Amino acid sequence: MHHSVRRYVRFEHRGRIAYGVLEAAAIRLIGADPFSGGAETGQTVPLQEAKLLWPCEPSKILAVGLNYKSHLGSRPAPTQPELFWKPVSCLLAPEGAIILPQGASNVHYEGELVVVIGRRTKAVSAAEAAACIFGYTCGIDVSERDWQKNDLQWWRAKGADTFGPLGPAIAVGLDYKASRLQTRVNGEVKQSQLLSDLLFDAATVVSHASRCVTLLPGDVIYTGTPGTTSALAPGDVVEVEIDGIGILKNRVAA
Amino acid sequence: MHHSVRRYVRFEHRGRIAYGVLEAAAIRLIGADPFSGGAETGQTVPLQEAKLLWPCEPSKILAVGLNYKSHLGSRPAPTQPELFWKPVSCLLAPEGAIILPQGASNVHYEGELVVVIGRRTKAVSAAEAAACIFGYTCGIDVSERDWQKNDLQWWRAKGADTFGPLGPAIAVGLDYKASRLQTRVNGEVKQSQLLSDLLFDAATVVSHASRCVTLLPGDVIYTGTPGTTSALAPGDVVEVEIDGIGILKNRVAA
Repeated sequence: MHHSVRRYVRFEHRGRIAYGVLEAAAIRLIGADPFSGGAETGQTVPLQEAKLLWPCEPSKILAVGLNYKSHLGSRPAPTQPELFWKPVSCLLAPEGAIILPQGASNVHYEGELVVVIGRRTKAVSAAEAAACIFGYTCGIDVSERDWQKNDLQWWRAKGADTFGPLGPAIAVGLDYKASRLQTRVNGEVKQSQLLSDLLFDAATVVSHASRCVTLLPGDVIYTGTPGTTSALAPGDVVEVEIDGIGILKNRVAA
Repeated sequence: MHHSVRRYVRFEHRGRIAYGVLEAAAIRLIGADPFSGGAETGQTVPLQEAKLLWPCEPSKILAVGLNYKSHLGSRPAPTQPELFWKPVSCLLAPEGAIILPQGASNVHYEGELVVVIGRRTKAVSAAEAAACIFGYTCGIDVSERDWQKNDLQWWRAKGADTFGPLGPAIAVGLDYKASRLQTRVNGEVKQSQLLSDLLFDAATVVSHASRCVTLLPGDVIYTGTPGTTSALAPGDVVEVEIDGIGILKNRVAA
């Protein structure tokens, strides 16, 4: 399964940041970011010597709300993808700490499939959008529910520093609709859903966003969370796993 | 008045992009962006040969809603700055065309004072925030009112391509509270307000944002619009003028 999938990572090794192709115990370096067609340099780095970073550097981050029936509760299903922005300053690397902001009292995980854009994308159809998607990774759309409910907009509810864990790898060639997303907190399964259950699939979301916004290589779209969520506490460990991508693991700190 | 104000611009000249200090008929070049302390190179470019760009390259853009009594209508005054994100892809240069997106039918101007951040800013008080502000410029928070009302969040209502005109210059050393903001459409005054009427002043907004989000040099915050607004049509010319900064002028296209 997933034998033809390539996994791209961004990482730091001996003070230098680079991109590479992830293997079982090593990273094969590429000479530029994968959207620019970076070719392998022939160098490898042992995985255990590398610190993985968020796998690309987006110019902007979109996210989708209300994109699984299991997450709607009593709300009606939306008739179009309902999007919002997260700032690039909220990105967090695999293994990084989700910091509960001062004044936050109700911070929830949201495990999600994340789309990574591969080329300049404007006003494309869903059919055309598929070719604009470079690959997929895991994300946590960390959400402060009280701010989400009480603020005019979700700028800090979804955008506080460390509220955007992303990674560990961008899977290219993955048929995500055959994959399952699972979110675990301290090892206990909290969310588990087939990605074919997305109300608006990746291509439809990209197409809808592109009607108003020019998407660029490396831009990312969190596609929404399934099921229910609950509050995190300092010391908790959150894992989001998607078949064919890997496990995004972050701990929570005060 | 404003004799000690310096105005920084970003511009293109003969295919090259640079920063400089704006004079009456020329730009004195600086060797790096002004946040990095770019010093004057001794070169000048005639203003008429330069194409002005948005005056800095933010990593992210915040904006404030409901920040003038004259704009509240029947809504209660907020008890804290109410912020939202605009994507960097919506930035538009002075003289650039605001493009009405397909499906948009109710696109309004919002003339605004925009704060430009000068240094890394996290969790600062309002008193500390003043020293984190590099300067001020003019902006138009272009807004599609039907999307703003009907979408779950304002991602495209405030974030469509060309919905973020910014410029022409960053005024450093300006006491903005002594300045008036005026928005004109086809020469007719539509908004006119003293900037001392902001409900939450620039330093208070920066402080509030910085509690959750790390702001970086060149990041910008649109501070909200006064009075009322109305729909734009192709061919309209919008001008936002702030004493001591200059005039930001954009036309509207289908």
